[in-house]
Amino acid sequence: MPQSFTSRVAGRVLEGLAPAVVGLDPRLEALPARLAPAAAPAERITAFYREVLPRLRGRVPAVKPNIAFFEVHGAPGWAAYEETCRLARAADLAVIADVKRGDVGSTAEAYAAAHFRHADAVTLHPLLGKDSMLPFLERCRNDGRAVFVLVRTSNPSAGEFQDLPVGPARTLTDALADAVHRWGEGVADEHGYSPVGAVVGATWPAELARLRARLPAAWLLIPGVGAQGGRIADLAPAFDGRGLGALVAQSRGILQCFAPDDVEWRDRIDAAVEAFTKDLRALSASGAGS
Amino acid sequence: MPQSFTSRVAGRVLEGLAPAVVGLDPRLEALPARLAPAAAPAERITAFYREVLPRLRGRVPAVKPNIAFFEVHGAPGWAAYEETCRLARAADLAVIADVKRGDVGSTAEAYAAAHFRHADAVTLHPLLGKDSMLPFLERCRNDGRAVFVLVRTSNPSAGEFQDLPVGPARTLTDALADAVHRWGEGVADEHGYSPVGAVVGATWPAELARLRARLPAAWLLIPGVGAQGGRIADLAPAFDGRGLGALVAQSRGILQCFAPDDVEWRDRIDAAVEAFTKDLRALSASGAGS
Repeated sequence: MPQSFTSRVAGRVLEGLAPAVVGLDPRLEALPARLAPAAAPAERITAFYREVLPRLRGRVPAVKPNIAFFEVHGAPGWAAYEETCRLARAADLAVIADVKRGDVGSTAEAYAAAHFRHADAVTLHPLLGKDSMLPFLERCRNDGRAVFVLVRTSNPSAGEFQDLPVGPARTLTDALADAVHRWGEGVADEHGYSPVGAVVGATWPAELARLRARLPAAWLLIPGVGAQGGRIADLAPAFDGRGLGALVAQSRGILQCFAPDDVEWRDRIDAAVEAFTKDLRALSASGAGS
Repeated sequence: MPQSFTSRVAGRVLEGLAPAVVGLDPRLEALPARLAPAAAPAERITAFYREVLPRLRGRVPAVKPNIAFFEVHGAPGWAAYEETCRLARAADLAVIADVKRGDVGSTAEAYAAAHFRHADAVTLHPLLGKDSMLPFLERCRNDGRAVFVLVRTSNPSAGEFQDLPVGPARTLTDALADAVHRWGEGVADEHGYSPVGAVVGATWPAELARLRARLPAAWLLIPGVGAQGGRIADLAPAFDGRGLGALVAQSRGILQCFAPDDVEWRDRIDAAVEAFTKDLRALSASGAGS
């Protein structure tokens, strides 16, 4: 088995990399206007990541392509998605495919085969329960892959169902977290982490602290920083005493931090990555000192 | 606005078509072995549907492509998916895209744009709550599209979360159903149905009767008949007194009803469609007499 996703990410963070994930949400209107301006949408996207992904090498452990922004361009968009994943891996970046799939067993098998071809980890919807997870969990166990299951989403209406009480002192979010813990039992890397992680939005810092305690063996993937309102300063409780256990994702604030006609967009990205990773290294290290 | 999905489907059923949906799950190993045997996977899939979809014209109101079985073939698979949707619409079949997407607002907007380009209706995951629905609901209201929200899935572990009690005499499934009802309020076609429907598995007939009562304005999309164990005879409670309100989907039992080397596969499909639609017409009509 190749080095597992969790082991690889933990190793990078222990070597000093920030626990940072750069989100890849290729909105056309936010791409540099002068980069391949006459090309078709999918080619503009690929041209952008061909320049950007090598600049992230050695600065963050992983990227998170959001497949919706590729699907909107149809089959050429999917080809661009596959090429983006390839470019990321070539730049030594782990790929967390933000695909949020979730379906019955035989369909889940097809999704697992489809998405682990391009990615080291995927995000999943838990609503269908354990049998929708099995094809993914098998690849976690056998191929070192990982999953991040939606437990507490970052959006404003997250609580509509996730806050519902499902018994005494337990919400649906808690029940999902408990399932994530169960699904990950019996597989742990050298740092004690399982390949079954949880998505927990940065926009709910109180939930974050509670879920960290409830999920001692799960990596938390934390979206919602920046454009969605989550603040890095609130995320310290997500990390364990070694600075491990959480990956913070930011999309618009990094690769869409410039005006499309700004000729210095590469410098803007470099500066945004520097600021994001510096803040996160400090945060993760403060956890390590606690 | 073009005729809405719900109005179109209701019209077909009132004209005498069965409330039947043929699922398109293109498993390679189940395609006719002699049809384009040397072609690439995506081309074999397209060749199959190019023959099959015209044979469904006038016999069922809709088809349900399951995108996972296309995604597994990468970008060419996506091109085959788009071509399949085009072929279906050309054969006067409404397309219910079984994509089960569900994401935060800005991503949901991309998914809605991506999938309503090819489809008349889509299936959605509700876990993120109302703001993940809004881009889809807007297109239901303005463009006559429809959504089917997962309320009770057909798989064995459906109850792991969906059966959780969320207050007195109310399960998570009930809470999801109540949300489907709310999300559909204020938009109804000439038969009183809203564009916000629910997915309810045929494998849970007791739930089906309960949910029909709880969702008076929602079309129910009912998968799980056949290979998954659901029985058509159990589905009468899903229909209203006019024989409307439910669409029953079958996949493996129709377009995978033959051995791959059977040269008479076209006849087998015709016979399977005939049996499926005959049973369903009788069921829907029995509802109409009640």
